[in-house]
Formats: sequence, structure tokens, C-alpha cells
Amino acid sequence: MAVSLPSDERFEVLLKKMSELGIETFIVSDLHVIRWLTGFSGSSARVLLAPQQNLVFTDFRYREQVKQEVGCMESVIIQNGYAESFVEGGYLQGKRIAIQEEQVTVYEARNLSEKLGGFDIVPVNGFFDEFRMIKSEVEKADMKRASAISEQTLDKVLPMITEDATEADIAAEISYWHKRFGAEKDSFDPIVASGPRSALPHARPTNEKFRKGELILIDMGCVYNGYASDQTRTVAFGKVCDEARRIHDITKDAQLLGIESARPGMSGLELDALVRSYIEKQGYGEYFGHGLGHGVGVEVHEKPRLGKTSKDTLPVHSVFTIEPGIYLPDRYGVRIEDTVVMEESGVVPFQRFTKELIEL
Amino acid sequence: MAVSLPSDERFEVLLKKMSELGIETFIVSDLHVIRWLTGFSGSSARVLLAPQQNLVFTDFRYREQVKQEVGCMESVIIQNGYAESFVEGGYLQGKRIAIQEEQVTVYEARNLSEKLGGFDIVPVNGFFDEFRMIKSEVEKADMKRASAISEQTLDKVLPMITEDATEADIAAEISYWHKRFGAEKDSFDPIVASGPRSALPHARPTNEKFRKGELILIDMGCVYNGYASDQTRTVAFGKVCDEARRIHDITKDAQLLGIESARPGMSGLELDALVRSYIEKQGYGEYFGHGLGHGVGVEVHEKPRLGKTSKDTLPVHSVFTIEPGIYLPDRYGVRIEDTVVMEESGVVPFQRFTKELIEL
Repeated sequence: MAVSLPSDERFEVLLKKMSELGIETFIVSDLHVIRWLTGFSGSSARVLLAPQQNLVFTDFRYREQVKQEVGCMESVIIQNGYAESFVEGGYLQGKRIAIQEEQVTVYEARNLSEKLGGFDIVPVNGFFDEFRMIKSEVEKADMKRASAISEQTLDKVLPMITEDATEADIAAEISYWHKRFGAEKDSFDPIVASGPRSALPHARPTNEKFRKGELILIDMGCVYNGYASDQTRTVAFGKVCDEARRIHDITKDAQLLGIESARPGMSGLELDALVRSYIEKQGYGEYFGHGLGHGVGVEVHEKPRLGKTSKDTLPVHSVFTIEPGIYLPDRYGVRIEDTVVMEESGVVPFQRFTKELIEL
Repeated sequence: MAVSLPSDERFEVLLKKMSELGIETFIVSDLHVIRWLTGFSGSSARVLLAPQQNLVFTDFRYREQVKQEVGCMESVIIQNGYAESFVEGGYLQGKRIAIQEEQVTVYEARNLSEKLGGFDIVPVNGFFDEFRMIKSEVEKADMKRASAISEQTLDKVLPMITEDATEADIAAEISYWHKRFGAEKDSFDPIVASGPRSALPHARPTNEKFRKGELILIDMGCVYNGYASDQTRTVAFGKVCDEARRIHDITKDAQLLGIESARPGMSGLELDALVRSYIEKQGYGEYFGHGLGHGVGVEVHEKPRLGKTSKDTLPVHSVFTIEPGIYLPDRYGVRIEDTVVMEESGVVPFQRFTKELIEL
């Protein structure tokens, strides 16, 4: 399966930005960026971006796969290390060679400096973020499909929640049905948190059985054709108390307010503040302890960020989550999350699953 | 579930080595090392090792989990970044602060340098490898259990291989039954490769249906209590041709030769050469294109390495794979792999699954 490939124009835009920074060759080492850029999904690779030639490097294990996946780009199978291959093949153009500062380890940087004598190694931060944030229609379609697979999965597993089942059982079913319904894999380990554990924003599924009268928070996502989905619903197992219903309703209204209010060019800080202020007015501000959302793409957490300290704006064609939550420690918690795409007139959620409190 | 904790003596040994290197505080950032050292399994953490106090740092999401998992060690919930927390709390002792060179990015190192004015940041490589390599009896027991879960899973899924099933179906079943039989998760994405794809050492499962007369290579592993397993068997779907049977027999004999020949103190290069030479004598040397094996522990690939360029020795209490393979391009491939533990008199495999060619 080829990933949604950025067009040749994408390469031109990247080369233009490199040229503005005085960079002649860019050594790309982030596997997510490599998949986004070339479609290659192997577990070891580098890409060289340079005015005359863009190349994918990988090792013998991926000899066949790289040919199938990268299409018209040329690939090189390394014999020793990547640095050795760059030098021996004379693949580095110019003098200033960029590396991804937020990706390359101190060891790799030192090794490159040693092997690439005569070149200047230039650490660059977040070079691809602004480009990755703007999704093509093909990318949106893949993410919509990933979201649909995950909703189909949620539909499938909700009836499996019984007093004999455990959080870990349902988490295993989610991973299984994601794949059976066509996903490559989970985009993160599913969170299935019941009772007091629903108040932990990142609880790990336990072998505890479900108990009537408790809330169950289910945060899940999958990867389709390289692209991630992310969604959360909180359901009731039997009747839950009034306050649990109340924080569910407030969270739902806050989430819908976020969806209705989002406009292109708004900042991630602004949308977060708007939703946060609503929850504060209902008296639960101190129990919403995380940011409103995050970008989604080839990574399940990428730019833009939505939160109290975010400096990102929300451009047209960006895809991000809107996921307010209220967590009452040692009692119960609620989170409701959609992944949405920003269009000219506002955001459209990929998810269609009801936000009313389901009582199982 | 607490991980198999290294004893207090382990901390003493680490502090002794730090002292020899003139290091007063070590900032540990590798999550696998952190789990090995403290039992903490969250997705964001740092550990400070220092003579007076060892501390785990994480963020608010893991407030409860860190208390449950790290037992008697003290933990700190960061408010802003890790570097800020180290400085504000006055947690850094001495002047020379070590970081894991092979783990810390150029960006993090720069950020630390900026925030930790007055301290010397010292990049150190592979500091924990020699300690992680020697497994305690508790660690061995966890890995034995992980191996047993994966064998139970293989038993369960083999009968599901039919002409109506696909590689991706069986991969999904493997992940599912790993969890249902008690594993935390897969230790890597299962490889289920049939027909010509079995000749690709790292094929990704496809939606191709199985066909009679083909070999099927299944490489799988899971994580139990933080510790990984890794195993490969190659089975026949119906009758396969004589040469396929022949390379299966040679691979099996090569693998058994590796198990019989391994002795403590032998080098990874030596054991690789011994098995490789057997395959060469049978005329298939050029088709065994990877190393003989790798260490297994909290990571599914760690020290020691067994291969043509390995400089590692195989000490008593080390755990590693023995996995020769023969891959005939565009035709078929065979790999047989056990994870073994080195004891005084030689290695003992964790796997008991037959190595005879199973015909489904």
C-alpha cells in the first residue's frame, strides 16, 4: 500500500526552504517524516534531500519493500552504516548538511561529524512541522478511513463489556478488531479505564473486572495506510450516579462548543481557553488537567498543539483532536474526543459515534 | 505488576562505575533502562542517579502509576520540563552530569546545557549495557513466562491457517492471543510471511491468502512483566518441495549446533562463525544474510550481539537468540529461532516447540 504521497511540489517547497536556510543537503532520520515524504514504512532508513537528487537509504532487510513502497524515488541499500554510505557514494551535495535536531542523538551527531569530515553539520529544529500540518485530500481520506475503522471497532467491542470481562480483555479485542477491520495496527495502546481508573488520563488496562454503576473511559485509535486516528468515548456500565452523568454532560457540551467555535487561523491557545472557560464556569476547571488537543497525522501526536501554552495556530487543512475531560480523583473521570479537520468554514469531525451517555 | 527489580546492590554497582568515571549525577532518559532500574512503565520519565538519592521524575498523567510501580524509590511530578524540575528542586549533585549519548537528542542536550548553566554535561555511551546483559533469576523467570505465552499462542493460531485466511489475519490472532494469555503486548509486530515473502527476513503481513505447497515463516514475541520473548518457526502448508524441506533441515541442524556449542565466555562472533560455517558447508552460506542473534531483555534487541562484526562476549546469565536462516530470493525462506539463557555449562532454550517441519 503506497502512502498518500506529497506531490513533487512538496519536494520543491522543502528544497526552497532549505535554500533559504543555506542548506545544501538534509539528512532526514525521523521514520514518520520518511513515511510521510516517501511512503517507505521500514524500521530503519534515512532520506537525503538535495537539489539534484532525493534518495532513500535502508538496509538489506528492506530491499524488496523499499522498491515496492517508494515508487519513483531512487533507493540505496547500505553496506555498512548510513554515514559511510553517504560518503562512499558521494551523495552529499554542498557543504552545509542539515540534521533533525529533535531526532538525532548526540551519539549519531558525533558519529556523523567524525565520518563527514569537511562538511558542516547543521542541527535544524521542527523543519517539517509546518508542511506536515497541512493535509492533502488523500491524507484526509486515509485519516477518515482510520477513524471509521476505529468506530466500527468500538461498535463491535461495547457489547463485550460484561461483569465477566476485564479492561485488558476489551483492550485486546480493540487491537484485534482494528486489524481485522483493515488497520495496520493501533496508533497507541488502547486505554480502557473503569471506575476510579477513569480519573487517570492515561491509565493502563488492568485485569480488574467491570462493575455495575461505574463509568468506563475508552481512548483508542488505529493506523490506516500510515495515518493515525484518535477518539475517546466514556460509557456507563449500568446506572451511574447523578454527578457522573453531570460531568459527562458538561464534557459533552464543552466538546461540542469546541467543535462549533473552531475557525481557521485561531490559535491553539484560544480554542483551549474557550472550552476551558466553559468547564470552569460549571465549577470543574481544576479537574481538566491537560490540553484540549493535538495534531494527528503520520504520528498520533504532532502539530498543532492546543493548550494553555500553545503557540500554534490552526490553519485550514490541519487535523487535530478536541478532547476535553473532567477527572475527579479516586472517583471517576470523563473524556470525549474527536479528531477533526479544519476546513474554510470551521472543523468537521471524522467521528460520528454518539456523544450521549450510553448505558450498557 | 512490579518489574523484576534489580537489588540495592545494583544501584551500588552503578554508583561505583559513575564514581570511576568522575560522574556525580546521571540523568537516565531511556525508558527501557528506567523500567529495568525502577519498574516504572510510563511513557515519559527521567531517573536521576546520585550518591545521596535516586529519584524518578514523570508528569501528572502518571501520578498514581509511579507510586504503585516504583515501590520504595521517591518520585517527583514535574510542573514544567524535566530540566527545569532538576534545577528548581536542587536535585543535581556535583558538577559533572552524565547523559545517555545514544539516547538523548541534540535538541535535548542543547536544552539541558542552556538550563543547567554551571554544570558540565558529559555524554556517556552504553553505560548500562554490561549490567543489563546479566539477568537475575527473577528476570529469567519473566522471560521464560513470556516465551511460554508466545508458544501457547503459536499452538492456538497454527490451526487457524487455512486457504481462507491471510497473513494479516494470523498476525492479528497472534497479537490477540498474546494478550489473552497474559502478555502486556507484542514485543514487536508479528511477522507472518508465506511463499516468496518468507525469503524476506522482515516481511510485513499482507492480505494475501495462504496457498498450499508454501512455507510460512512466523516470527513473534510478547512482553510479560516488562520482559520480552522472541521465537521463530517455519511451517509447511501442505506438501512442500524437496529443496524447501532440505533448507528447513539444514537450518534446524544449524540452530541445534548453535545451542549445543555455546559456552560462557565465547564471543558472539565465534558462535556466529561456527553456525555460519556449517551452513556454508551445506552450500547455502550466501543465503544467510543476517547475524546469528541478539540479546533479549527489557528490549527485544539488546546486548550481546551475535554476528560477523560482534565484539561482545556471551557471559553466564546472558539471554540471547540463536536464529540462523536460509533465504532463497523469490522462492522461500526458513528461519528457526529460540531465545536461550547462558548457564555455567552452556545455553538452555526457553522454547520447547518442536523444530521438526510441521505440515499443516
